[in-house]
Amino acid sequence: MDKYWTPLVKRLTPYVPGEQRNGKNIIKLNTNENPYPPTPQVKQAIASIDEDAIRRYPDPESDELRRALANYHHVQQRNVFVGNGSDEVLALAFMAYFTGGKPLQFPEIGYSFYPVYCDLLNITPTLVPIDSDFKFYIDQFENNGGGIVFANPNAPTSLAVSAADIETLLKRVPDTLVFVDEAYADFGAESVIHLINQYPNLLVGRTYSKGRSMAGMRLGAAFADQHIIDGLLRVKNSFNSYPLDVIAQKAGLASLSDEAYYRSCVEKIVATRDWISAELRQRSFKVLDSKSNFIFASPTSISAGKLFAALSEQDILVRYWDKPALRDWLRISIGTNDDMQKLVAAVDRIVRQ
Amino acid sequence: MDKYWTPLVKRLTPYVPGEQRNGKNIIKLNTNENPYPPTPQVKQAIASIDEDAIRRYPDPESDELRRALANYHHVQQRNVFVGNGSDEVLALAFMAYFTGGKPLQFPEIGYSFYPVYCDLLNITPTLVPIDSDFKFYIDQFENNGGGIVFANPNAPTSLAVSAADIETLLKRVPDTLVFVDEAYADFGAESVIHLINQYPNLLVGRTYSKGRSMAGMRLGAAFADQHIIDGLLRVKNSFNSYPLDVIAQKAGLASLSDEAYYRSCVEKIVATRDWISAELRQRSFKVLDSKSNFIFASPTSISAGKLFAALSEQDILVRYWDKPALRDWLRISIGTNDDMQKLVAAVDRIVRQ
Repeated sequence: MDKYWTPLVKRLTPYVPGEQRNGKNIIKLNTNENPYPPTPQVKQAIASIDEDAIRRYPDPESDELRRALANYHHVQQRNVFVGNGSDEVLALAFMAYFTGGKPLQFPEIGYSFYPVYCDLLNITPTLVPIDSDFKFYIDQFENNGGGIVFANPNAPTSLAVSAADIETLLKRVPDTLVFVDEAYADFGAESVIHLINQYPNLLVGRTYSKGRSMAGMRLGAAFADQHIIDGLLRVKNSFNSYPLDVIAQKAGLASLSDEAYYRSCVEKIVATRDWISAELRQRSFKVLDSKSNFIFASPTSISAGKLFAALSEQDILVRYWDKPALRDWLRISIGTNDDMQKLVAAVDRIVRQ
Repeated sequence: MDKYWTPLVKRLTPYVPGEQRNGKNIIKLNTNENPYPPTPQVKQAIASIDEDAIRRYPDPESDELRRALANYHHVQQRNVFVGNGSDEVLALAFMAYFTGGKPLQFPEIGYSFYPVYCDLLNITPTLVPIDSDFKFYIDQFENNGGGIVFANPNAPTSLAVSAADIETLLKRVPDTLVFVDEAYADFGAESVIHLINQYPNLLVGRTYSKGRSMAGMRLGAAFADQHIIDGLLRVKNSFNSYPLDVIAQKAGLASLSDEAYYRSCVEKIVATRDWISAELRQRSFKVLDSKSNFIFASPTSISAGKLFAALSEQDILVRYWDKPALRDWLRISIGTNDDMQKLVAAVDRIVRQ
């Protein structure tokens, strides 16, 4: 019955997102969502939408939003690209820049969508090794003309590399485009957006899903030299002219106008992260030094797989991958203080049994 | 400076949407938007969105919306695919089903995004000729195993083919997937959605942008046999897991619950279309027999290019293509009665001068 499937469709192994279980008492620490709502100005912008704006096509170029993002990050509008979530931005960037026939380099542990894009787009991946502390080393990337992509902080490890290290890399690989995926950069990693005008081989991705509490709105962005953005726009305008609906554009704009609120949420999450990391270490978990809104933690008195299953039974969802390099570890999103206290209590109950 | 551009980026000629000029007195008849707002229930659904829904990821499968669309069209949920506008649905369908290496057949005059997708995805197009009345003939498509796509009604011609003709085609080309793009089917063409369970080689595309007055929300759908939908989902989940934000899903759902309002808007547009067609024919325009929310019209006492420019100067926007087969014609979206009366008055003024 799959006689109409192309070889492409047959070979794909799609990305699997974290479980979206619903229910009142579920503590959802498995998809790195922000536990705090977006600024009230976002809801206000959404509620005040004009009916005429719904019946008309949105601005295909999202000019107002791009201008605001440019101001926010101290770059020019021509340096900004926006898309339907950072996943779409990544997909379009892979299509535009990593399909030239040379291998794409990325860490062997990282965002699990990268190999999926490679499969979809016929890109050969070159995996850069991760050491036993889950670190990868910038000097292992080569100037191969194919491409480099990594998340900073990395997922699911939560570890960050410094802006100075990235700048060293950019200098060393002038023929190779480097995509720095800053999905989680709001929580402590050093951004490299300010380097885009110095390094034409730098493309930086961002998302509204984590720091800005807007995973439901699907807003992603990328920052680069104008010529890199122009190439992305050519691909976007050959795929889907209007990726951002009118409400997403307005909501994205409203989020940028309440910096104090945004900062206070980020600070609370960072404080909770440091607290839960300490609590789990006291219980002899290994916990990596997170710069993100999640931690990567390995229990010692119970297997990670068993703890994952036992937490899930108690409606506490965390993320677990049954793969050789990851199966001793859990990725736990940072919720509210209350969420994390319940997590600690549940861990204590489970370990005691 | 384009040293990072791949051959793909260099060869692209992106799609160009109609001008989105803004302003109070502009009469916008150039992008086939619906002149009436969506049902008030859509705005209500948008305004009542829960903050928690914004900070969380949306349902990646859009299950509730797909279930509602299935009920509405009397098919099963497994027969329904949704995407970020029908352009994204088309792009993913082209990727999934038309990249097998054999040519894709489509009419030489049709939606101008089809050749753009072919270019992006390295698909060889085979153009089926259009006669001097702007008709294409179903019996010119071959069972080539590559694919067939056409809009019904066709754009920019506004002409429709019958469901019986499409069924004859589906029987004759059992090895070839046929994408019937029903973006404009709400306004008078016969839908073939009811045939999807009989013909596994049928894929039908729909949009909320025209009949449902929601171009601003970017909602598209496709209907087919479960295995065709499964293949589409594999590609979608290898490209972007969450293409529909939570508000688009809720708004799409709300639109389906007010059938009477939707019907009344469609009826008004059809009545206005028939009125303006007659008015322009009285002024010796050729006007094709539209089954859509736009007309395709050719003036005789002035060139189409001159009329287009003169209307634009008076802030009445219509669509014009300066290409050999199209340059005597204008595509004019159906606005309100008042919009169209102003159009007729402007035409009379311009022709008199």
